[in-house]
Amino acid sequence: MNQETLDIVWIIIAGILVFFMQAGFAFLETGMVRSKNSVNVLMKNYVDMCFGATIFWALGFGIMFGYNPSGWIGTDLFFLSTATSYTYSFLFFQMMFAATVATILSGALAERIRYVAYIICAMVVSAIIYPIYGSWVWGSLSAESSGWLKNVGFIDFAGSTVVHSVGGWAALAGVIVLGPRLGRFTKIRNEDDKKKSARYIAGHNLPLLGLGAFILWLGFFGFNGGSTLAATATIGKIALNTHLAGCGGVIGAIITLAVQSKPKLVSYGVNGGLGGLVAICASADVILPGFALLTGFIAGIIVVLSIHFLESFGLDDAVGAVAVHGFAGVWGTLVVALFNPEDYFNFNQLLIQLAGIGVAFIWTFPSSWIIFSLVNKLYPLRVNTLDEQRGLDYSEHYEIGYPEFQHELLHPGKE
Amino acid sequence: MNQETLDIVWIIIAGILVFFMQAGFAFLETGMVRSKNSVNVLMKNYVDMCFGATIFWALGFGIMFGYNPSGWIGTDLFFLSTATSYTYSFLFFQMMFAATVATILSGALAERIRYVAYIICAMVVSAIIYPIYGSWVWGSLSAESSGWLKNVGFIDFAGSTVVHSVGGWAALAGVIVLGPRLGRFTKIRNEDDKKKSARYIAGHNLPLLGLGAFILWLGFFGFNGGSTLAATATIGKIALNTHLAGCGGVIGAIITLAVQSKPKLVSYGVNGGLGGLVAICASADVILPGFALLTGFIAGIIVVLSIHFLESFGLDDAVGAVAVHGFAGVWGTLVVALFNPEDYFNFNQLLIQLAGIGVAFIWTFPSSWIIFSLVNKLYPLRVNTLDEQRGLDYSEHYEIGYPEFQHELLHPGKE
Amino acid sequence: MNQETLDIVWIIIAGILVFFMQAGFAFLETGMVRSKNSVNVLMKNYVDMCFGATIFWALGFGIMFGYNPSGWIGTDLFFLSTATSYTYSFLFFQMMFAATVATILSGALAERIRYVAYIICAMVVSAIIYPIYGSWVWGSLSAESSGWLKNVGFIDFAGSTVVHSVGGWAALAGVIVLGPRLGRFTKIRNEDDKKKSARYIAGHNLPLLGLGAFILWLGFFGFNGGSTLAATATIGKIALNTHLAGCGGVIGAIITLAVQSKPKLVSYGVNGGLGGLVAICASADVILPGFALLTGFIAGIIVVLSIHFLESFGLDDAVGAVAVHGFAGVWGTLVVALFNPEDYFNFNQLLIQLAGIGVAFIWTFPSSWIIFSLVNKLYPLRVNTLDEQRGLDYSEHYEIGYPEFQHELLHPGKE
Repeated sequence: MNQETLDIVWIIIAGILVFFMQAGFAFLETGMVRSKNSVNVLMKNYVDMCFGATIFWALGFGIMFGYNPSGWIGTDLFFLSTATSYTYSFLFFQMMFAATVATILSGALAERIRYVAYIICAMVVSAIIYPIYGSWVWGSLSAESSGWLKNVGFIDFAGSTVVHSVGGWAALAGVIVLGPRLGRFTKIRNEDDKKKSARYIAGHNLPLLGLGAFILWLGFFGFNGGSTLAATATIGKIALNTHLAGCGGVIGAIITLAVQSKPKLVSYGVNGGLGGLVAICASADVILPGFALLTGFIAGIIVVLSIHFLESFGLDDAVGAVAVHGFAGVWGTLVVALFNPEDYFNFNQLLIQLAGIGVAFIWTFPSSWIIFSLVNKLYPLRVNTLDEQRGLDYSEHYEIGYPEFQHELLHPGKE
Repeated sequence: MNQETLDIVWIIIAGILVFFMQAGFAFLETGMVRSKNSVNVLMKNYVDMCFGATIFWALGFGIMFGYNPSGWIGTDLFFLSTATSYTYSFLFFQMMFAATVATILSGALAERIRYVAYIICAMVVSAIIYPIYGSWVWGSLSAESSGWLKNVGFIDFAGSTVVHSVGGWAALAGVIVLGPRLGRFTKIRNEDDKKKSARYIAGHNLPLLGLGAFILWLGFFGFNGGSTLAATATIGKIALNTHLAGCGGVIGAIITLAVQSKPKLVSYGVNGGLGGLVAICASADVILPGFALLTGFIAGIIVVLSIHFLESFGLDDAVGAVAVHGFAGVWGTLVVALFNPEDYFNFNQLLIQLAGIGVAFIWTFPSSWIIFSLVNKLYPLRVNTLDEQRGLDYSEHYEIGYPEFQHELLHPGKE
Repeated sequence: MNQETLDIVWIIIAGILVFFMQAGFAFLETGMVRSKNSVNVLMKNYVDMCFGATIFWALGFGIMFGYNPSGWIGTDLFFLSTATSYTYSFLFFQMMFAATVATILSGALAERIRYVAYIICAMVVSAIIYPIYGSWVWGSLSAESSGWLKNVGFIDFAGSTVVHSVGGWAALAGVIVLGPRLGRFTKIRNEDDKKKSARYIAGHNLPLLGLGAFILWLGFFGFNGGSTLAATATIGKIALNTHLAGCGGVIGAIITLAVQSKPKLVSYGVNGGLGGLVAICASADVILPGFALLTGFIAGIIVVLSIHFLESFGLDDAVGAVAVHGFAGVWGTLVVALFNPEDYFNFNQLLIQLAGIGVAFIWTFPSSWIIFSLVNKLYPLRVNTLDEQRGLDYSEHYEIGYPEFQHELLHPGKE
């Protein structure tokens, strides 16, 4: 036997775990929305994966990992057909990453975006916007070419920025273009009132939210562990760091809420943990366990504060995706320059990391905003008010999530 | 270290994933039935695995993989005790396959079959009918003997026919012997009306259905990946093909429904994906990614059409198992002869594949029909009308799935 | 490549599976309680893992696996920082075991223990009580020192006693200190009546219970398989034995209930299976498959009888954890001396096993009882009666699990 077989075994296992993150997102998001949108959210996650994988195979993979002489975009490997076993495995693993980016959008935009409009937007993000940025940092598969941000020295091991922040900034653009859900922000007293008050919209099924959270955590072991792209002894450290960062994130979020004397809602605990898991992506292979815990802890604080920060601008991210993936991703990317045990607080590296972070925002946010606005012109993104009130399951899917239990939908007159 | 250890690691991991498919089937089926049968469907899947594994260890494994001088049936390895590590691993993996066959039945026959009757029928199928056919194609573990269909040149890598179609045809026999659920097909105007109209019975918990779908998809990576029966570099291609076929299946089903101007219900999207995953089993190790996508796409179309086709005959398969496992399995088995990159459209192979498919039907359907009919004579398969109306949870299990939420069962007088 | 890389790959995969058991416990327990406590039970499982992992990294790991010259307690490896890849992997794996111990408590004490009080108690058990006993049997990582029970010859491969019975006895202490849930045991006629009658409190979501059961079963493959602490060919046998024992447990429990003419409730079937999985831990690497099935079968009987036995003393274990982990763990530990194929019914070994079992009880039960009682003095463990009636979600978490469906909580006046 040889090392390559073991590499493939590990990459495939890791890819399978990342695949399952799609289920994690599906249930996290489904649990966090109202039951009248449960089918819609579930199907967005299920279907974006299917279209996303297909388009990534056809287009995105080549853009991201094809031969990249300019450092700005890949130029081959489209519609990959005959290839080495390793390349097949690598495509499988990367295909799951692209699905993750798409699905970060789905939660943020939940409960008001039209089904087909969402699929179109998600496909553009995961098949074009994400792979282009990805080609700058992770390109290319060929040893003879490389991405320009990689050449500059930007480091992002498993994608705190490449995957998560890019997904987060695209979600932010979508949140702005779409506008908040009906009733999410209300004038306190009357229409002239300047200040709006945010109203919490409770998810309909917290055990389902919890299920999504556990599955995502599970998937992050593959997400980070597989980013070695080979079976190496380092995966022990990576798994340990991943877990400690997740734990730190939960603890950080809970303590922040305790200090603020706010209830420690499930969604915050879960998002804190996910923030920790997102933040550790960039540095999981190098930092020491204690710093992984600290990285997660700070990410948990950041997530709670960011959720409130975004809310204060009247931005309605239905599941906290921008905070978790965007903001915690930024923090994680900086950690590379701060907590590297061989070189703590490297100021030069910090500038490079900031540059990479900035480039991610400057590329992703405007391009996503333009795409979403353009789609919105041609095919309105938002369902109409009546459909939003009734729920997207009813208007877009012709069925509801729990037909025996949603009496108000079955007998609307009785409500 | 040696290759054998890595082989065992991989087979065990793959077997664990196939084990988890049992949960996938359990939740897919539970979500698709009415809440009054949720406990029943869940427990059928949980308990058939336990009895099934025991009987397969005692009997089925020997029939299928024992020394097979005639090519028609295995003759040793019953009650396997002392064996090599590889054989233990192989039994573990195959035990999970046998459980899959049993559980394909459970969905199709849901909501009207008696619990104990189901267990008896499922055991006969998974411990006798399936292993006998399996011994013809995959037998035997001993290099000195082989199954007759294998000798003829029939190829079924991971069981599109051996596992899925066999399960599907057994399910079809059960569906016919049992008859449809009350109210599934109604005379349109009056008793003299020739034509019956099919009524859709909505599943009670679509997020649960979605959970089952994701878990099954996860499990198929082990199902196909582990069918190498060793850790080889090919598993990269297999995983990639498996995923693309699943994606193709979802897309195929959705497009078919769009063309038919029918609502794109969750159950169809899910069944389309499963059809793609079933169809790729036979050829996942050889065909190219683009053809895997195409194989899945066509399987998705076949699943939607087959569900309507079976319905038009008044056959009530509660979850679409015959379409997904039977019909998509047939298509997948033909793909071996059509899309092999070294030999496209091999007519001779196509005839052999058709022969294997035909033999599977000719063996499984009548033998299952006889067994089910026989059991039905001795111990009626079907619950009585009152119990079917009340739900099998109440009559067979003395408890209900959601005691705080099923008000109509708790306070039947109030309804 | 070398064996060490493969060892790490396997240990990490196994650890990931054990991690997922946390989700298994979470949903098993959530499904088994009333909906008014669903958030509470879920969050106990989620948060104990986070605090537990942190404290185990800081403290427990050193106690359990640090250099152990006395055989009674480890003395280094606290706050593990720089270490070998193998040690990182080993810590990752063991961290998940410690979380399991904590979470065994959570189910037994459900529906009446205060959230913060639970976290404190669980942390003491998983970071101090468990690692101390663990150091006697599994200590230490250093080849130069060893635990005293290991030196005596006590054998517990994957923790029937070390993990499960220790968790079970700690849970028993908690059950006694806390007292039963309101209404669990009632005087049959009047206050003077000597005999109390046990009332069954139905879980609110049996599909969720089933989900937990399947996930736990899945996790046990990592729990037992990873306890080799290396990638060896033995894991084939271990996986097979694990599965057969689980199946035997379900069958044993069902048959026991059939003999007793009692309904075969989901919770008993599930607990029977878990009992089998717990029982096989100690000997999964040595006994033959038939004996694994028998071990599980007997465990299933033991679980059913133990649940009724504990109930007859007025002990209210909300999920049956003491029976499953405590009693089935004892049985499994004895199996080591009974069914070893190279030495059946070894009386000397049986005495040693009994000693180890006895020591586990004598250490765990009193120490846990003292800790729980002490915490109870300083910070009452139990919620007040009104809060217990309303549910802990409402009083401790400020949110409820299914806000759209729990009408009695949303509109308490209408009830």
